[in-house]
Amino acid sequence: MKNYLEKEEWCVVENGLHAEYNKISESISSLGNGRLGCRGNFEEKFNGPSLQGSYIAGIYYPDKTKVGWWKNGYPENFAKVLNSVNWVGIDIWVNEIDFELNPNQIIEFYAELNMREGILRRKTVAELPDGKKIEILSERFYSMKTKDRCFLKYSVKPLNFTGEITLAPYLDFDVKNQDSNYDESFWEHLAEGENDKMFFVQSKTKKTDFMVTAGMRNRFTLNDEEIENPSLVSNTAFVSAPLKIKVNEGERFSVEKYCSICSSFYYDKESLIEECKSQLEESLSNGYEKAKNSHIAVWQNIWNDCDINIQGDIAAQQAIRFNIFQLYQTYNGDDARLNIGPKGFTGEKYGGVTYWDTEAYCLPFYLATADQKVSKNLLRYRFNHLPKAIENAEKLGFNSGAALYPMVTMTGEECHNEWEITFEEIHRNAAIAHAIHNYTNYTGDKSYLAEYGLEVLIAIARFWRQRANWSAEKQKFVILGVTGPNEYENNVNNNWYTNYAACWCLQYCIDSLQLVKETFPDHYNKVIAKTNFETTHEPKRWKELMDGMYFPFDEKRQIFLQQDGFLDKSLMRAKDIPHEEYPIHQNWSWDRILRSCFIKQADVLQGLYFFEEHFDKETIERNFNFYEPLTVHESSLSPCIHSILACAIGNHEKAYELYMRTARLDLEDLNNDTKDGLHITSMAGTWMSLVQGFGGMRVRNDLLHFDPFIPENWASYSFKVKFRGSSIKVIVTQSEVSIINLSEQKIEIILKGESKTIYPQEVKSIA
Amino acid sequence: MKNYLEKEEWCVVENGLHAEYNKISESISSLGNGRLGCRGNFEEKFNGPSLQGSYIAGIYYPDKTKVGWWKNGYPENFAKVLNSVNWVGIDIWVNEIDFELNPNQIIEFYAELNMREGILRRKTVAELPDGKKIEILSERFYSMKTKDRCFLKYSVKPLNFTGEITLAPYLDFDVKNQDSNYDESFWEHLAEGENDKMFFVQSKTKKTDFMVTAGMRNRFTLNDEEIENPSLVSNTAFVSAPLKIKVNEGERFSVEKYCSICSSFYYDKESLIEECKSQLEESLSNGYEKAKNSHIAVWQNIWNDCDINIQGDIAAQQAIRFNIFQLYQTYNGDDARLNIGPKGFTGEKYGGVTYWDTEAYCLPFYLATADQKVSKNLLRYRFNHLPKAIENAEKLGFNSGAALYPMVTMTGEECHNEWEITFEEIHRNAAIAHAIHNYTNYTGDKSYLAEYGLEVLIAIARFWRQRANWSAEKQKFVILGVTGPNEYENNVNNNWYTNYAACWCLQYCIDSLQLVKETFPDHYNKVIAKTNFETTHEPKRWKELMDGMYFPFDEKRQIFLQQDGFLDKSLMRAKDIPHEEYPIHQNWSWDRILRSCFIKQADVLQGLYFFEEHFDKETIERNFNFYEPLTVHESSLSPCIHSILACAIGNHEKAYELYMRTARLDLEDLNNDTKDGLHITSMAGTWMSLVQGFGGMRVRNDLLHFDPFIPENWASYSFKVKFRGSSIKVIVTQSEVSIINLSEQKIEIILKGESKTIYPQEVKSIA
Repeated sequence: MKNYLEKEEWCVVENGLHAEYNKISESISSLGNGRLGCRGNFEEKFNGPSLQGSYIAGIYYPDKTKVGWWKNGYPENFAKVLNSVNWVGIDIWVNEIDFELNPNQIIEFYAELNMREGILRRKTVAELPDGKKIEILSERFYSMKTKDRCFLKYSVKPLNFTGEITLAPYLDFDVKNQDSNYDESFWEHLAEGENDKMFFVQSKTKKTDFMVTAGMRNRFTLNDEEIENPSLVSNTAFVSAPLKIKVNEGERFSVEKYCSICSSFYYDKESLIEECKSQLEESLSNGYEKAKNSHIAVWQNIWNDCDINIQGDIAAQQAIRFNIFQLYQTYNGDDARLNIGPKGFTGEKYGGVTYWDTEAYCLPFYLATADQKVSKNLLRYRFNHLPKAIENAEKLGFNSGAALYPMVTMTGEECHNEWEITFEEIHRNAAIAHAIHNYTNYTGDKSYLAEYGLEVLIAIARFWRQRANWSAEKQKFVILGVTGPNEYENNVNNNWYTNYAACWCLQYCIDSLQLVKETFPDHYNKVIAKTNFETTHEPKRWKELMDGMYFPFDEKRQIFLQQDGFLDKSLMRAKDIPHEEYPIHQNWSWDRILRSCFIKQADVLQGLYFFEEHFDKETIERNFNFYEPLTVHESSLSPCIHSILACAIGNHEKAYELYMRTARLDLEDLNNDTKDGLHITSMAGTWMSLVQGFGGMRVRNDLLHFDPFIPENWASYSFKVKFRGSSIKVIVTQSEVSIINLSEQKIEIILKGESKTIYPQEVKSIA
Repeated sequence: MKNYLEKEEWCVVENGLHAEYNKISESISSLGNGRLGCRGNFEEKFNGPSLQGSYIAGIYYPDKTKVGWWKNGYPENFAKVLNSVNWVGIDIWVNEIDFELNPNQIIEFYAELNMREGILRRKTVAELPDGKKIEILSERFYSMKTKDRCFLKYSVKPLNFTGEITLAPYLDFDVKNQDSNYDESFWEHLAEGENDKMFFVQSKTKKTDFMVTAGMRNRFTLNDEEIENPSLVSNTAFVSAPLKIKVNEGERFSVEKYCSICSSFYYDKESLIEECKSQLEESLSNGYEKAKNSHIAVWQNIWNDCDINIQGDIAAQQAIRFNIFQLYQTYNGDDARLNIGPKGFTGEKYGGVTYWDTEAYCLPFYLATADQKVSKNLLRYRFNHLPKAIENAEKLGFNSGAALYPMVTMTGEECHNEWEITFEEIHRNAAIAHAIHNYTNYTGDKSYLAEYGLEVLIAIARFWRQRANWSAEKQKFVILGVTGPNEYENNVNNNWYTNYAACWCLQYCIDSLQLVKETFPDHYNKVIAKTNFETTHEPKRWKELMDGMYFPFDEKRQIFLQQDGFLDKSLMRAKDIPHEEYPIHQNWSWDRILRSCFIKQADVLQGLYFFEEHFDKETIERNFNFYEPLTVHESSLSPCIHSILACAIGNHEKAYELYMRTARLDLEDLNNDTKDGLHITSMAGTWMSLVQGFGGMRVRNDLLHFDPFIPENWASYSFKVKFRGSSIKVIVTQSEVSIINLSEQKIEIILKGESKTIYPQEVKSIA
């Protein structure tokens, strides 16, 4: 846990440089606009720990997997999110001395990530070895309005001397991924140079052949008066525009750096240079301030729709905004080819961009805060990958149109290293089905099921039917050799969550078949024909499986068992692990972790969260009280689910503790890994903890339900949700709950069990 | 299965080149002398499939392990047996045409691995594109007498033309391992050139810094008349002695190639060149024939001690000699730093040289056929590694002197890639303890226990005590998260074999403590002090574990269960797997294999083999009849154990079937992987199948027992064993069993349950 960042309502502030934590700061101050993004690397050279990182959505490299002994079915590739052109870089020379930020020479440092505006600003005063002092100001942003463009404003002021200062803004495409299995470069450099007034670099990815062009133009000023542009200085994959002038003490030498980064993901390869050039021409003629204002306006709209306001707890307030901010920086939902990487644009780790995180954690956030088409795009992403999911299942020995969605993917292919994850963590298939349910349940839009969802559900159901086998010993169906959500186990038999979710998938598919048959008969017939569905035989076999499924259960404690044999472990409490041994995955051998009772993230409890309405409160409580104490929450996806369930069973102290843990996970580096990047997908879990947990929001029988609780140290909190064309705001104080209908139509909601009809602009309150 | 090799009693013959199988032939015709060895690569260039391979015992490279996501405790290195200097190469030019063996141009081909002599011979007649025919004769051997030396004789005869022929014997150290995790070269080249009359190359290994010098001298003749030596032609890591002369039709142009390969494993680095030089001087002055004769004499002695003669079944006869021959080529037992690699000097695969194969399979062979010091060296190898085994256990979280021996090693460090093997296949610890028992039981030498064994046993016992945990649920001790000998499962709970072997280790350690205390009190006190052994407390805790251990058992079938939950699998028969899907590990996904009931190698049955005297015949029979039909025998170590047990329960048909499978595994490429190298360690299993299986040999109460069976298609078989200073020969025919005492002392044996005393040179027979 680290507490060096200052807490402000709308900003994350680093006051004074904490060089030893710089990689953490870089992660936290990452910027992005859903299409481009980068870590908060300094513009200048920096003499301290740093992970250079700049990323482009959709651009990836299929790195050869790294496995000991390759076995049949192992994925060939581990797709890597690519480190791409460094566009933020600016070199400085002071009287011919190549300046670098040296932690020892910094006498003032103030960095502010302004989340309301989506801008990163910094003021630095440095003293050079010869006593010269300079003040540096910088700010930058990725335009949320014009998504290929990024902007940077940078200035230097000599504080106690007059001298020659060079500013050299550059583009550097000579970059590598730190996370490369065989230490290869993933880029092939194509060109660099000048085209009209644009300086540009152009590269393409090996194997995948994505082409990327980055162009820049600069506007230099001295005391706000424009001065001439320098000529190109270039090197392989590198272009720079160094301008050297004499700057008097107290004068300000500035540059506005305009960049466009265009890729063949969106443009013809042949047109990339022209596209960059015309974008830059426009950017330059409109000027920096105009770009900034239109960028801020987009953020204003986002915040207007989805801000959460917490009064009385600045740490909680800052954290929830940080989580929402990073989610919208990562994914805006306007392209069904994109998805939400676990690290977004903030680091390389994990590779691939799509995990079950999207369906299980992110979807509820976008359902409630964004236009319906955003969630639909997330679902269509999987629909589009269905043929590859069927292929993936075939590789493993399944047939007849059974689909196993990949655990990690970019384009539908499985792209992760480890068999215990790719082969065994099959519960992801259920999360994908559950997301279709979630979407349908939330939006009421059943046409998705008919047009896309049913086909996916059938393929998933077929997988489960083949994956289970009859145990003559148990006289039940069993599912052997799986890894549940708790990845601190693997190759277990009868993971309760997996078995339960499998049955749920089958039932949901049967129900959906019925619904689509009745409501969209044409679509039904098309899907039946396309999937060669055997309308009598298949559902019959699915029912057999559901009726005969085995669920491990402990009679004594009346709890579901995470898996067969779980109670053979030495049961210990997570809180008894010595503090210095946390996180255990960084301190214990993998062998010891596997054999221990300690749980990485909700497993049985994930099922109780997903299928809450199937269980009574006492059942949830018993299981929560058994499993939570064994849980080390070393997956970022863990505390949120526990916080929501803690709310549901009235354990408010635990709910608050775990809420703060999920909310401030990265701001305080609670899992000791924020240096690698932020935990983007789990940020949606933070939102869920507040809205579903504290707010008690559920959708049941086509109605929104709320049952709010407020932590005792909070004065109030409020959030907005969109629901089926309506928009409402929920305000919770210590004394009452108010709901404001912000839309043009009345809405019926269930508040603390009572039905309320709220008319447009009306406020309904309840004590 | 491939049947292209001819069956002869003492030879393996390839008549006519089978180019498509050439990698298999190269494996089978590998030569070695325990210190050096190489695959049967052709001397000439070859235009067909080939794996170049030449190896030096003890010389290895710690290649960085290749794992997906590194986790705590994972081994850093995967030790690789190194492909080393190619010394067999000879280039030929015919009238300036660079000759290569082209399968299409070979009109006669006869290759013979002579196992009696340890010599590889070949006659080849090739027709060049222009119609010229040449006859090539070659023979070579690694001297069993002078172990750094290898010899090759090679000649060319133009059959239908007169022309200029060049013979260019060379040494090539510009070699790589095919099996390199990161495609690196493991050698750093140091020098090549001429020193006096020796041409040499010298390299050292990266990281491990082993230095190797290979020198050669050549003797050229035309029609047996010596001709002058050529000058050096060299290149980086390459020296050659090309001699071009005019050869008339029918004349024979020959070269004797004398090589010495000396390494810093045996000599000072500074002296390597001198050592090679003086060895070569001596070799050359003694001449080729003398070296050959002394080499053959060593083989004569070996065969005299350990030949097995089978009459009436040439396939069985050839096979058993092939197995014995390859074992003695791989390991002679004169250096406790060396061990028996699963592929010996016949391929790169598997890396490392020491698996539990040595203790479980090879030890019985060397106990019965070689001097006692050979077995003792194998045991001391592990004793010497004890500190590293303790370190290895510490890495995984164990303490107080507990030792976990590595699954794969060169120097005592774990050096394999996969956690499911290195962390979980802990049964190897028991095999190492069992080998101490086996040695003591066979030789009667209890001093080993006092001097070395006890310390190892204590450390192993401590490991088991810590590795087991109390299950409150079962009210028993359990061992969770292991991989048994059956590697087609992993991370299972309560593997019966592992649990049983663990308890046996504890009891054996307690018994050994008692024995050493009584018999070697000084040693006892030293060991107690050195290990900080708590003489009351530790045995008490061990007994608790033994008394409380859980053993999975099926009441219905009255069989031991391979592991918890085994009966949840769909039980199918291996013989029902379609033929084209064998071996399943090459045709099924790993996921499918893990979930299937199919067993790679003896697991429960391995325990019944090791601890046979603890079980009655009916128990063995029930378990055999349940497990063998589920077993695909895709480990080379599998058929032998099953064959022995089949004999024990009187299932002679099965015993013979599995004997032939183990015996001819490589000769017929039964597991479709002989191209990667031979299955050296399992060859000892073949010997066990014959001697312990068919011969029924056991050692009980300090006496040799025999209970022979003879397959009905055999006329007779005979084998020799050494036992406590005696040597006896057992001859089994269809009508009687005879035992000859070949030694100077009388011996008491138990033959078919009857005690017999046999005097020196006496023969005792029984119908």
